[in-house]
Amino acid sequence: MNKGNNNVSESTINRLPRYRRYLKELEQQGITKVSSNELGEQLGYTPSQVRQDLNRFGAFGRQGYGYSIKTLHENIDEILGLNQKYKMIVVGAGNLGQAISRYAYYQDKSFEVSALFDTNTALVGTEAGTLPIYALDDVSDYIRENNIDIGIICIPKEPAQAVADIIIDAGIKAIWNFAPTDLNVPENFPIKNVHLSDSLQTLTYQMKI
Amino acid sequence: MNKGNNNVSESTINRLPRYRRYLKELEQQGITKVSSNELGEQLGYTPSQVRQDLNRFGAFGRQGYGYSIKTLHENIDEILGLNQKYKMIVVGAGNLGQAISRYAYYQDKSFEVSALFDTNTALVGTEAGTLPIYALDDVSDYIRENNIDIGIICIPKEPAQAVADIIIDAGIKAIWNFAPTDLNVPENFPIKNVHLSDSLQTLTYQMKI
Repeated sequence: MNKGNNNVSESTINRLPRYRRYLKELEQQGITKVSSNELGEQLGYTPSQVRQDLNRFGAFGRQGYGYSIKTLHENIDEILGLNQKYKMIVVGAGNLGQAISRYAYYQDKSFEVSALFDTNTALVGTEAGTLPIYALDDVSDYIRENNIDIGIICIPKEPAQAVADIIIDAGIKAIWNFAPTDLNVPENFPIKNVHLSDSLQTLTYQMKI
Repeated sequence: MNKGNNNVSESTINRLPRYRRYLKELEQQGITKVSSNELGEQLGYTPSQVRQDLNRFGAFGRQGYGYSIKTLHENIDEILGLNQKYKMIVVGAGNLGQAISRYAYYQDKSFEVSALFDTNTALVGTEAGTLPIYALDDVSDYIRENNIDIGIICIPKEPAQAVADIIIDAGIKAIWNFAPTDLNVPENFPIKNVHLSDSLQTLTYQMKI
């Protein structure tokens, strides 16, 4: 099979985690192969959409057999960059920061949070689960010394841009942003925003119609 | 201006919370009008995209004046269903559930969480901030007695479907789901999934390219 290339469309990429989630469930049930019809039915896509998505990154089902779940899962992991480990820190050790630090860890062994940072002196020096909470002043040194890959921002919107600037300057490679604001980052710098209130507002739209 | 109608496309709807967020920032700065050029530049859309989005729900800017921020904000609130209050509960009083219960409240006065529910007897009877934590067994009665609109699911994937079935049966009108699974709900039932690990996996894809 081909390796994943950079020509996969963004909408296909956004669907891959869902495929992956379902494939993991099938694997846990001991199932080894799946057809595009089954995948489509379960995920709400048409079989031709499924074949098109998977063909794009070089996974070709065999007629009358379907896809090998193991190979498909491995291919998707490779495309998404999940066949390696990522070191992460969380800035903001409030409820959300603590929740995300545990969530990231439990969801997938590719992701390891090693510390949280906060300006709140009541939190600094304590632990979140088994993770240390350090002073925000130390975040740049920590990123440099520990080669941290991903910074998770779980603070209010006002200080979020300043924190983003600091951690990018310290060499962080990507930002996962939960602050309710759109951060300015260098062009092509990897960033994903989780704007929870945006999601809630489109839910209320659905309730109206 | 026209009232919001049901013909607004999903992609426009998904952009409205971002427009709204930026308009709120401008309002806080005491600014009263904005052009499609300014909106586009700030949000990364083209001016014609902005005009198209806003025209679709009946907001027409005046040549040489632009849009009234107050009117635009009110129109977007009306389209998204934010000109009313929503009563919410959270199922799952762990870190994530507690974080979301506070986040929802502080983000917007349209949303009020009144209680959390959990099966953990160590949590039941305690409080999350100022909110009571009740036994999950009592959730159906609570939804019926308090006319709860939105159920927020913050539990692991295994029990999530059973909880969704119970709260839908009790008359909840929408679900905001944080469990890492796709829930089966009746056709056209309003539901929004926040799949945090999906977001993280598309971030690592960006880091590769």
